[in-house]
Amino acid sequence: MAAAAAARLLRLAPRRLQVKTSPLAALSFPLPRTAPLAAASGRRQSFCAAAQASADAPAAAVAAATGPVGEAVGEFRKRLRVADVKGGEDEGAALVGKELAVRGWVRTCRAQRTVTFVEVNDGSCLSNMQCVLTPDTEGYDQIDSVTTGASVLVEGVVASSQGGKQKVELKVSKITVIGKSDPTSFPIQKKRASREFLRTVAHLRPRTNTFGAVTRVRNALAYATHKFFQDNGFVWVSSPIITASDCEGAGEQFYVTTLLSNSAEGGSLLKDIPATKDGRVDWSQDFFCKPAFLTVSGQLNGETYASALSDIYTFGPTFRAENSNTARHLAEFWMIEPELAFADLNDDMACATAYLHEISSRGLESPNYCCFMQVKYIIENCKEDMDFFNTWVEKGIIDRLNDVVEKKFVHLSYTDAVELLLGSKKKFEFPVKWGLDLQSEHERYITEVAFGGRPVIIRDYPKEIKAFYMRQNDDGKTVAAMDLLVPRVGELIGGSQREERLDHLEARLDEQNLNKESYWWYLDLRRYGSVPHAGFGLGFERLVQFATGIDNIRDAIPFPRVPGSAEF
Amino acid sequence: MAAAAAARLLRLAPRRLQVKTSPLAALSFPLPRTAPLAAASGRRQSFCAAAQASADAPAAAVAAATGPVGEAVGEFRKRLRVADVKGGEDEGAALVGKELAVRGWVRTCRAQRTVTFVEVNDGSCLSNMQCVLTPDTEGYDQIDSVTTGASVLVEGVVASSQGGKQKVELKVSKITVIGKSDPTSFPIQKKRASREFLRTVAHLRPRTNTFGAVTRVRNALAYATHKFFQDNGFVWVSSPIITASDCEGAGEQFYVTTLLSNSAEGGSLLKDIPATKDGRVDWSQDFFCKPAFLTVSGQLNGETYASALSDIYTFGPTFRAENSNTARHLAEFWMIEPELAFADLNDDMACATAYLHEISSRGLESPNYCCFMQVKYIIENCKEDMDFFNTWVEKGIIDRLNDVVEKKFVHLSYTDAVELLLGSKKKFEFPVKWGLDLQSEHERYITEVAFGGRPVIIRDYPKEIKAFYMRQNDDGKTVAAMDLLVPRVGELIGGSQREERLDHLEARLDEQNLNKESYWWYLDLRRYGSVPHAGFGLGFERLVQFATGIDNIRDAIPFPRVPGSAEF
Repeated sequence: MAAAAAARLLRLAPRRLQVKTSPLAALSFPLPRTAPLAAASGRRQSFCAAAQASADAPAAAVAAATGPVGEAVGEFRKRLRVADVKGGEDEGAALVGKELAVRGWVRTCRAQRTVTFVEVNDGSCLSNMQCVLTPDTEGYDQIDSVTTGASVLVEGVVASSQGGKQKVELKVSKITVIGKSDPTSFPIQKKRASREFLRTVAHLRPRTNTFGAVTRVRNALAYATHKFFQDNGFVWVSSPIITASDCEGAGEQFYVTTLLSNSAEGGSLLKDIPATKDGRVDWSQDFFCKPAFLTVSGQLNGETYASALSDIYTFGPTFRAENSNTARHLAEFWMIEPELAFADLNDDMACATAYLHEISSRGLESPNYCCFMQVKYIIENCKEDMDFFNTWVEKGIIDRLNDVVEKKFVHLSYTDAVELLLGSKKKFEFPVKWGLDLQSEHERYITEVAFGGRPVIIRDYPKEIKAFYMRQNDDGKTVAAMDLLVPRVGELIGGSQREERLDHLEARLDEQNLNKESYWWYLDLRRYGSVPHAGFGLGFERLVQFATGIDNIRDAIPFPRVPGSAEF
Repeated sequence: MAAAAAARLLRLAPRRLQVKTSPLAALSFPLPRTAPLAAASGRRQSFCAAAQASADAPAAAVAAATGPVGEAVGEFRKRLRVADVKGGEDEGAALVGKELAVRGWVRTCRAQRTVTFVEVNDGSCLSNMQCVLTPDTEGYDQIDSVTTGASVLVEGVVASSQGGKQKVELKVSKITVIGKSDPTSFPIQKKRASREFLRTVAHLRPRTNTFGAVTRVRNALAYATHKFFQDNGFVWVSSPIITASDCEGAGEQFYVTTLLSNSAEGGSLLKDIPATKDGRVDWSQDFFCKPAFLTVSGQLNGETYASALSDIYTFGPTFRAENSNTARHLAEFWMIEPELAFADLNDDMACATAYLHEISSRGLESPNYCCFMQVKYIIENCKEDMDFFNTWVEKGIIDRLNDVVEKKFVHLSYTDAVELLLGSKKKFEFPVKWGLDLQSEHERYITEVAFGGRPVIIRDYPKEIKAFYMRQNDDGKTVAAMDLLVPRVGELIGGSQREERLDHLEARLDEQNLNKESYWWYLDLRRYGSVPHAGFGLGFERLVQFATGIDNIRDAIPFPRVPGSAEF
């Protein structure tokens, strides 16, 4: 019976192979023929194949229900990547003699007298696969098309490399050009292009070493962030992007509207915009029936979920319509905002510190190996991308990051920080005085000089310079706010304990001339089962800059949005 | 030397304890006093304490640099949660006799003759901690404040529970009311509130069983999604939210603008909107110097990164300004869009299938235990939330999900599907004819009836009903598109192989009267190293509905945005 079922199942297997072949199928790379390859990479996985006869599957039902038309879906197999070959401890040495195929894009092609070297990159790591061709290589007649930017399939045998640059190379038996790249017009040639120019070809810049590495580090940081919070029992909450809530300062917000789209060809006519009798925009006819904006922070929404699920975090895009054309500002950026219930400022500082430690030393389990910060881990696992940044982007970044991981974080009050600055005898551009906000030069002096490269948290700021929702300290003058400073970057994280006492919060809203009615739902959290809680915010692109040394924040996000530009 | 350094370090430890105590500190719960508790939960973790003397830390430097003002940041410790107590295999039985404390919100308070039962929930799981009070309990004088919605700290000893509902309960030695909740006005009382009503109190609805469970399942699905793609070498790419690209159909897009904010108090005056001489909106004065929109899909941007990093995925918010007031539409929703380089439609189908299998059976490693789909896994690990949905939301959902995991996916062509429908003799509301799109009733018939509850992929649709970027099949009539259908929900995933041939793609743009110049960067991908590639899109809230049985998509996202409403 089981045998009959299996036979019926097997009947399906050959059918799958009869699926009509596309041009791609001709390029299809057979799975590595050697078991050691799969074992060596440690990353290959295969999934339950629909066509596989499996003892625990309801085989008879499958065969019966398939009927006359349905075919089983094929197995999903992870593609062999350059990182799988060169990412192991031996940098591929164990694979010498094995046949394999690599697909990717040509970085360079150098013809020597008898051999031609083609560097192929597939984005899985910084390293290229060095491919060695001779005139005998099948497909060598296409060599004129093997130019920078072209996509190729190379098949061959792994061999020890003669040069010192890599342990292994591929002796190519066959090369197939998949997609050509006209060398006279391809915008990204080998010569180093400026970052400014590369922003104008943001669709192609991930094919450069720098932006490939930034993308992989960014990915590792994002995944490490999720992993940290999930491991610690936090629930991810998607705070809303569009909001008609009046809680946020509208000054620097983008409007979201459909009123402008009911317009004629060639551009929106002002007279088509719905208006009230007194010549104002008639918001009641807008999509949300009132003015709506892009969010500037998910914190207040996050607090509502922390007041039910206890510990939550948001990780999503936020926006500022600030007309700042600087290397530190984006109109659209990603924020991470955890919120901890039953927590005070000390818990908040401890969480922020643990987070930075954790993503530093443990965010590296990502199979896309690329890591940062912990030197030991880098050397053992993935020095490539970080060595690249250390050499080409910011000399000494590995030491600086190592400092953050190895040196202990300290905290001190704003009042102590002001005293420390006043006592430093250093000339600052901006004045230092209790009640004034700290400037970047002050923050950097504290973390870089006074504490010798150690991360520092400054806490308990004057209430006048901080937001209404921060909890008032007993001194009546300060609030339980904290800023986490790191060398060179300055403020990386800002957080606070939130004001959980209804009367105090209402008083603060009054002090700041904010409309209490707009905050009805936020105040409800203090009316019904209020709890002490705290949280912080972290600009994700700042973290990417911190980890890579990339100067301009526009290079820390795939498609930067800044005044005058939202291309691609 | 090392001893001296350690001594200097230890000097810091007591200082940390001298930090001035806030009201919260008084409530501070001592860590579980028994080692077995920490070990039993298997989830508690402690991080590198800043004040800990560690052999490998540069101890002398730490002590020296601390100076007179800095204090070490405390250790971050995961809070004890109800899930830690009741989430184990023994549902807490091993903890009987241990002292512990729980913080959370009161669900109910039932006074009997000699004892009072208080159900406390902290959102970490569906289960409450049943707390047993007597008049001798410290804080019993506050019992009138222990009402639904109030937040409390309960300390006591774990005991076997007499009732059959749970294995353990807490014999409370002390109760502290942290935040009261006026029972006459608290909107969420024990009686079941309608989902419609709960949407009006979206800031409080996560405190209900249903929305707590939805939030936990949503979180598990998101994390499982990241884990699946990371494990398979995909890189997360944040596609832009705001876009001035003309590639997307502007009809259903939201405008993003700052032109409306230069306005008078009391509402924007039309006359203040910058205009050109012919009475049109002067976009050159807008923030991005041209019309900008909220994205409807990250796919085209994702393709640019797949053409460099090989395999990528996006996971972010997308938008439709569609005036649809239905249970299936949101103006703001989250999309997952993987893109595979060097892949055809078969790879795409295999990836989508593997993804659904994987998040079904393995998305459950999340420490926030709550799972779905694989019955075996649910029974062993986390039946709570799913049993809840099975009982209260959609009877039979566990069987339905189990079907998806256990039954093999099949695929058939659109042409075969049309023939199957025509041959079914069933009366459909909408006509079935080659060239017309399939309606929900057709899709459900195929997956629910024709294939007996098995997921089905329909592929190779007529090109007239699909998007311009889908790859033309050799028959000249169809494109390599696929829709993945599941029972009851219908289409869950839509994908395609992309047209990688420049001439074919340009012809399709012409056919659909699209402006080729707007697509210059998208066409560049076909000019420079084009590769066969494929991808799919998945509406994340549809997935949440699919996994929970929640009828209305507005209940599958924390703060739904729909026509006329963007509250909170």
